[in-house]
Amino acid sequence: MPQRKLGRGVAVVGAGISKFGAFPGKTSRDLFVEAFQNLCASVERGFDPDQIEALYIGSFNSERFENQGHLAPILADWAGLAPRPATRIEDACASGGVALRQGMLAVASGLYEVVLVGGVEKMTGQPGEQISDILASAADTLYETPSGFTFPAFYAAIASAYLAQYQTAPEMLMEIAIKNHANGALNPNAHLGMSIRQWMIRAREKAAAQGRPLPNWQNEYDFLNDPAANPLIASPLRLFDCSPVSDGAAVVLLAAEELARSFSAAPVYIIGSGQASDGGLYARRTLVSLPAARAAAQQAYQMAGVRPEDIKLAEVHDCFTIAEVIATEDLGFFEPGSGARAAQDGMTARDGRYPINTSGGLKAKGHPVGASGVGQVVEVWKQMRAEAGARQVKRDVNLALTHNVGGTGQTCAVHIFERR
Amino acid sequence: MPQRKLGRGVAVVGAGISKFGAFPGKTSRDLFVEAFQNLCASVERGFDPDQIEALYIGSFNSERFENQGHLAPILADWAGLAPRPATRIEDACASGGVALRQGMLAVASGLYEVVLVGGVEKMTGQPGEQISDILASAADTLYETPSGFTFPAFYAAIASAYLAQYQTAPEMLMEIAIKNHANGALNPNAHLGMSIRQWMIRAREKAAAQGRPLPNWQNEYDFLNDPAANPLIASPLRLFDCSPVSDGAAVVLLAAEELARSFSAAPVYIIGSGQASDGGLYARRTLVSLPAARAAAQQAYQMAGVRPEDIKLAEVHDCFTIAEVIATEDLGFFEPGSGARAAQDGMTARDGRYPINTSGGLKAKGHPVGASGVGQVVEVWKQMRAEAGARQVKRDVNLALTHNVGGTGQTCAVHIFERR
Repeated sequence: MPQRKLGRGVAVVGAGISKFGAFPGKTSRDLFVEAFQNLCASVERGFDPDQIEALYIGSFNSERFENQGHLAPILADWAGLAPRPATRIEDACASGGVALRQGMLAVASGLYEVVLVGGVEKMTGQPGEQISDILASAADTLYETPSGFTFPAFYAAIASAYLAQYQTAPEMLMEIAIKNHANGALNPNAHLGMSIRQWMIRAREKAAAQGRPLPNWQNEYDFLNDPAANPLIASPLRLFDCSPVSDGAAVVLLAAEELARSFSAAPVYIIGSGQASDGGLYARRTLVSLPAARAAAQQAYQMAGVRPEDIKLAEVHDCFTIAEVIATEDLGFFEPGSGARAAQDGMTARDGRYPINTSGGLKAKGHPVGASGVGQVVEVWKQMRAEAGARQVKRDVNLALTHNVGGTGQTCAVHIFERR
Repeated sequence: MPQRKLGRGVAVVGAGISKFGAFPGKTSRDLFVEAFQNLCASVERGFDPDQIEALYIGSFNSERFENQGHLAPILADWAGLAPRPATRIEDACASGGVALRQGMLAVASGLYEVVLVGGVEKMTGQPGEQISDILASAADTLYETPSGFTFPAFYAAIASAYLAQYQTAPEMLMEIAIKNHANGALNPNAHLGMSIRQWMIRAREKAAAQGRPLPNWQNEYDFLNDPAANPLIASPLRLFDCSPVSDGAAVVLLAAEELARSFSAAPVYIIGSGQASDGGLYARRTLVSLPAARAAAQQAYQMAGVRPEDIKLAEVHDCFTIAEVIATEDLGFFEPGSGARAAQDGMTARDGRYPINTSGGLKAKGHPVGASGVGQVVEVWKQMRAEAGARQVKRDVNLALTHNVGGTGQTCAVHIFERR
């Protein structure tokens, strides 16, 4: 398929995010309004919400999480934006990234100048097995889930294949968890905003309070290797390899390139976009790479006219630690089989060659499914504008990337952003 | 909001539809592939499915009807179209019409030249109360459905308000059912492809076979007034005021204007598009009109540069007979309060001033929710190209309209088509 140019450029000119976490008293609409209010405050040259001409809302499964279909116009109404057209986009965990792409295309089409892109999910409040079952419906429920697979099991299969093919020790996946929790500890909106060291302190305090013997961990690896602290979920994946079930919302404001500076002194231009689909995991030739991610990345790099080595920072879809490893390879940052080693070498830390998931990622920031893809853009927006606070990377981030996966790779959306 | 021009024109260059009905052995993917195969045969100058660059799929609630989320890439895979980007669009019963709009915008953006837009729903196979509950989740499940409303009840409230405000007899709604069943009887893909006369014959045959006394109906009105033949569902709506629960799929192929004639000798250009949102029914100032429909229609007329009186044929969202009456008023074909009378006067019959729902409409063709909005476009395509067989209208249809409503009007999408 030939890569073509958009009719006009599109920029992110505002961004907002809710607190991610487990909020028994909140619904999707509450979370969305919270993120929207933060967005309004982020548009430094000011804007009137009336300027918004359409909404694109990524949401995975409000049908089953909240018994609410037709969510988009409800959110529009609650944000005071009716009768603006409100469209819900769903591609499982990639709903947010795909919503961004549709918002971008809608502005590029010439019909709209200003569009709101949001993502939201209210996941907590149901029994765990129910949540697992809902998440599993992102896979093929005719050919995959009847054989017993849940999402941790899918990614466990991927991890097993990866560890075997590349002779990698399962402990190397821990590097991802350690790094992302360290980043998440610096993100006030994170669901699990604690470093592994902080988790260890809390666990010790709990043991002391309960009169149990204090665990004898020397370092993070001891903690993560302790089956009591970090139990197996689906071998080889343990608890700290998995992202949490979260509630949250994120929104970004898009504007036609020529209007961007009327909203923002430092707009973030979307210069590359890619999206691809794939069949289920059951039909893949390999488990150690996601073909849809490679295809989406290729499209985005080609549109942007940049190479992987040009990227200064990326938010990637680390629903499980193994997913981040594979993502950094699929995106061309590292050779196949070398992603875990690169993380161990500090290449993906905040001060590394490729800072990855400075927000804490899905792993620590949390993974309210429909919100995750848009939340990635919020982090990129903050880092590119040097507004990321304690987790701000030192280098100048003029080029960044987001990578958002649906299911086990049946959808992937990749975007590349430039601050000019 | 100012109305703007698209970056480039977009045309429908192919269309296909599955049989609508209740198919215990079929899934969404089967129905989608059936519609897609019919589409392939409809592109008279031939095309290679490889030319399709992206899919937009309208689906309301495969999550609960089929326990399948993330449907879009599955459909892409089953149609042999992976790794093309596949995006699911959801706006309840307007999912199909909104998917058409997103496909149009995607082509207009310059990124794609050829896009497949589909709609699908597999609704049957669950207990009736379960289906009612799923459908009710298109309304506001915090503020509306807890008070006991189901969709027939919502539209019963609308009908009651309409009949009272305009001093209209409930029997006048029967005109819509009689007309749409007469049209559906001529549509081989219809779910309920029988005229009311044919229903009467079947009911008499059944009575005879069971040794019951033959009903003494003189005409359709007697039949529709007989509580045994046409029981009350939610007063004043009876069974034949309601569209059925159906399985089905529909697809259309969109191409950039400049390529349209390479696919089709008679492309159907999308010259107008409108979409609007609204709050729930609980917050409306009036029940006898849908503000989102009026807003969407106004946008579409303005973009197309045409007036209601220019339209030669329309497919409108008759989920209930009252919905068609209100649609024909919201679209400006008839004055408020005169829609039912206009239907009684034959104005909306196949040979009338404004032929409405020549396909049989949702009422008789069937209403597989996500498919309905795209199914409307398939009918318009056939009528504009004089391929509608026994139900072909006699006048030349060079300008036609589709009107697709989500929920009780929280979403409406209106499109205007021109054959040049």
